[in-house]
Amino acid sequence: MEPTTIVLFGATGDLAKRKIYPALYNLYVEGKLPEPFSLIGLGRRDWSDGRFKDAVAQSLEEFSRRKAQDAGKLQSFLDAFRYSVLDIGREEDYQRLLSLVEKREEELRMPPNRLFYLSVGPEYFEPIAANIQKSGLGSANGWKRLVIEKPFGHDLRSARELNKKLSKSFTEEEIFRIDHYLGKPMVQRLESLQQGNPVIQALWDNRYIANVQITASETVGVEERAGYYDHVGAVRDMFQNHMLQLLMMTAIHVPHDSSAETVRFKKKGIMEALELVQKEDVHASVVRGQYAAGAIGGKPVPGYTSEPGVMPGSQNDTFIAAKLMIDNNLWRGVPFYIRTGKRMKEKSTRIVVEFKEPVKQALAANEDGTSPNLLVIEIGPNEGFKLQINAKEPGRDGRFKPIQIELQPNEADAPEAYENLIYDALRGDSTFFAHWDEVEMSWQWVQPVLDAFEENLVPLYPYEAGSYGPAAADELLARDGYRWWSGDNLDAQSSAGLDGKSAPPSESNTKSMENEGELYAYHANH
Amino acid sequence: MEPTTIVLFGATGDLAKRKIYPALYNLYVEGKLPEPFSLIGLGRRDWSDGRFKDAVAQSLEEFSRRKAQDAGKLQSFLDAFRYSVLDIGREEDYQRLLSLVEKREEELRMPPNRLFYLSVGPEYFEPIAANIQKSGLGSANGWKRLVIEKPFGHDLRSARELNKKLSKSFTEEEIFRIDHYLGKPMVQRLESLQQGNPVIQALWDNRYIANVQITASETVGVEERAGYYDHVGAVRDMFQNHMLQLLMMTAIHVPHDSSAETVRFKKKGIMEALELVQKEDVHASVVRGQYAAGAIGGKPVPGYTSEPGVMPGSQNDTFIAAKLMIDNNLWRGVPFYIRTGKRMKEKSTRIVVEFKEPVKQALAANEDGTSPNLLVIEIGPNEGFKLQINAKEPGRDGRFKPIQIELQPNEADAPEAYENLIYDALRGDSTFFAHWDEVEMSWQWVQPVLDAFEENLVPLYPYEAGSYGPAAADELLARDGYRWWSGDNLDAQSSAGLDGKSAPPSESNTKSMENEGELYAYHANH
Repeated sequence: MEPTTIVLFGATGDLAKRKIYPALYNLYVEGKLPEPFSLIGLGRRDWSDGRFKDAVAQSLEEFSRRKAQDAGKLQSFLDAFRYSVLDIGREEDYQRLLSLVEKREEELRMPPNRLFYLSVGPEYFEPIAANIQKSGLGSANGWKRLVIEKPFGHDLRSARELNKKLSKSFTEEEIFRIDHYLGKPMVQRLESLQQGNPVIQALWDNRYIANVQITASETVGVEERAGYYDHVGAVRDMFQNHMLQLLMMTAIHVPHDSSAETVRFKKKGIMEALELVQKEDVHASVVRGQYAAGAIGGKPVPGYTSEPGVMPGSQNDTFIAAKLMIDNNLWRGVPFYIRTGKRMKEKSTRIVVEFKEPVKQALAANEDGTSPNLLVIEIGPNEGFKLQINAKEPGRDGRFKPIQIELQPNEADAPEAYENLIYDALRGDSTFFAHWDEVEMSWQWVQPVLDAFEENLVPLYPYEAGSYGPAAADELLARDGYRWWSGDNLDAQSSAGLDGKSAPPSESNTKSMENEGELYAYHANH
Repeated sequence: MEPTTIVLFGATGDLAKRKIYPALYNLYVEGKLPEPFSLIGLGRRDWSDGRFKDAVAQSLEEFSRRKAQDAGKLQSFLDAFRYSVLDIGREEDYQRLLSLVEKREEELRMPPNRLFYLSVGPEYFEPIAANIQKSGLGSANGWKRLVIEKPFGHDLRSARELNKKLSKSFTEEEIFRIDHYLGKPMVQRLESLQQGNPVIQALWDNRYIANVQITASETVGVEERAGYYDHVGAVRDMFQNHMLQLLMMTAIHVPHDSSAETVRFKKKGIMEALELVQKEDVHASVVRGQYAAGAIGGKPVPGYTSEPGVMPGSQNDTFIAAKLMIDNNLWRGVPFYIRTGKRMKEKSTRIVVEFKEPVKQALAANEDGTSPNLLVIEIGPNEGFKLQINAKEPGRDGRFKPIQIELQPNEADAPEAYENLIYDALRGDSTFFAHWDEVEMSWQWVQPVLDAFEENLVPLYPYEAGSYGPAAADELLARDGYRWWSGDNLDAQSSAGLDGKSAPPSESNTKSMENEGELYAYHANH
């Protein structure tokens, strides 16, 4: 890893405090930061270096998985931090920034490798990128990289526009688009689960897989994000980015020694094979929902349109379920069912791979007690794999019972998504980032859905807060002869089984109350 | 289940006390005995019915997994028991027996369904069967069945002779040959593991399986069985029967709704496809061993030839390892390695299915930390499945680590082998019994091995007591590029992994000290 300057826009904002500083500190403790490294924090507020360092230290205290117990280590970490006031639109400020960056590079005898981290709202992406270019900050004699957070556009057209503008200042190889779902440990393991295991590889296609279900459900409502969320909905907030990325990561087949290029190429291949849906047909494969009043954990909660900040009579989607088909030799005929929503019964991000049953068994299914073989990948808040198989009581007249064998990685202290992602960005490894091809094709799939919603071609089903979404989402699967696998029926299988090794649901407090699609950067105070 | 009379020869013997009465009692408590049932115990000793019932009650106290806490239930169970003195060679005694059986049938208004359980030494099988026939005990107006215990012959010739004699009095369908390994819960589950699980079915052949390892290792020596064992050796005691039955049960592919006929047919098919070895070639695929002095659990133990009751200079085998090939489309090219021995490092009966690695991965194996995918079936003394897969630390430079996901059936109170087997015999279901075809073909495979041992064409390797057997057994696999999976390297993988869900080895006291090949009947006092 080469010595690097991190230029952080939005250094006084929420994302920086909650995620970036803790991630950097933990990387530092693990010896995974460049040596030396320099960080220049930028914001509108007129802070001194000292005040900035205090704020960073404070954020570690509050949000880091490792607390800074060693004062000396904390001090040497903070030594790398400097602060500069910057008005995003003022060119002079970039000149001052350049001077500061160069001064620090000189002091630390570093080459001019600069990573620009834009922890700011998307409307600032383009002006910042342009000013970096104009000021000479980026035309250095080293490398430059741009790290940005979603949203990457509001629809297909705006995404293309944004990309066009950014590409004037940065090449695609220099742009690292963070989708924090790709940083989650279980998502990163998904790739290696296939690569490292012939028994999984052998089963990973339409010969053996009946369907794939990807769910990201939240119990929270819109909370303080109503003003933003009401213009975005579940499709843009979760589906276009996180959910489609999970689909790609599940569907790709990557060889054992795959490079970032290979992963990118394979993901692109999946998106190219994804069957597009015409606006008029969206209703047949997409279910739109909005939560009504109900109860979460026994406590009554209001319906979406009664939430403060939501427009009266809003038709915004807080739930979406969709059936997607990948038209290639490996996945033809295997539905990928995706659903995501707020105010649902459980907080869970989960991929369930349901395996086919032989004909005979399907017919006998209800009689002999078997249930489909399932591979369950728990991404959050719990992490782990479960394999559901059928076991039988000894003796020839014993009935089958589904049982789950499960692995919960014993990693109380696992790195968080941002650590993995920042580490990769510093090394220039773009494997777990969203590439432009993927972003563009995701919007291509989503655009007719947005249009159909806009033109009210798809019913907006209310669903009770605290449920698993509208009944129409169940019918979407029932038509194909399937059902959603959720906490309720998965756990039921588990406790009915021979085993009992079901781990108690443990929600880490710091993680469980977050909005999954949270845009810290958007609230950043710059 | 039809009303049945159980006629038990050797009713005062060891097997009856330790296994048969406890099994019957537990079946009774579970409502799995015929209603009504009658049991006539036979022995040389001049016991009264009362003394017999006391002995049965005593055996339950000592050996049953369920203690007889309900005096009323115990009494109604014992009500079915009667005793009669019998000298195996005296025809008059069989007439008296017939009268007693008929008297009880009349009292209980039962049809003449009679199950003859021969819990006696094999030299008595034929005279008893003949006398049953002659006396008219078997020519009743109901059904008759013969239950016998190994050994079924001492070699191919004697096995054929015995079968020929028995078949004068009983048809093959009427003969139930107990191999108690087939009654073990995990062996009975083996069949359903495939049947109920497409993910296992898909992998269960030479496309995905590299080799299969079947081990039955004991820590005990010959104990009080020396006089018998020294004429038998590991080949006859364990290999010809139990080990080859496990091979068959592992290799068969049975459809979901298989009948006993299907299982029998499939097992026969495996034995027919088993490549025979010529006497002169035995040395290349069979390793013969005999334990020398060493230590078990830290305590020094003598070598085999120093054991009381063993002939000085005995060349008897206490260990055998063999490579067997099944020449059919499903298993061609997949070695089945079998080993069994006494005074070994661990007490364990275990089947390990090792899956193939893709070419690339094999080359990279040592570099990236992967280990082969394994399915481990623990048959005893622990029971459970483990699946060893490779997991990777998050991030692209993470190394693979083998981890084991495991299922331990939560059945502290599982039925014992004899319960399953007696229950099946009473119902007339021969699925989990050794059929003559299998017995004969097992002897056919074993005969050249016996001959080669007899003629000393195969070296007799000493191995240290408390080891995993002679080095030659390791070389047998190393030549093919494999290694034995045993408690030591399996547990090492487990503890090195991410998980930690390795259950502590728990040996049930009553089970762990038994000789695996124990012949209670042989010691029966009749």
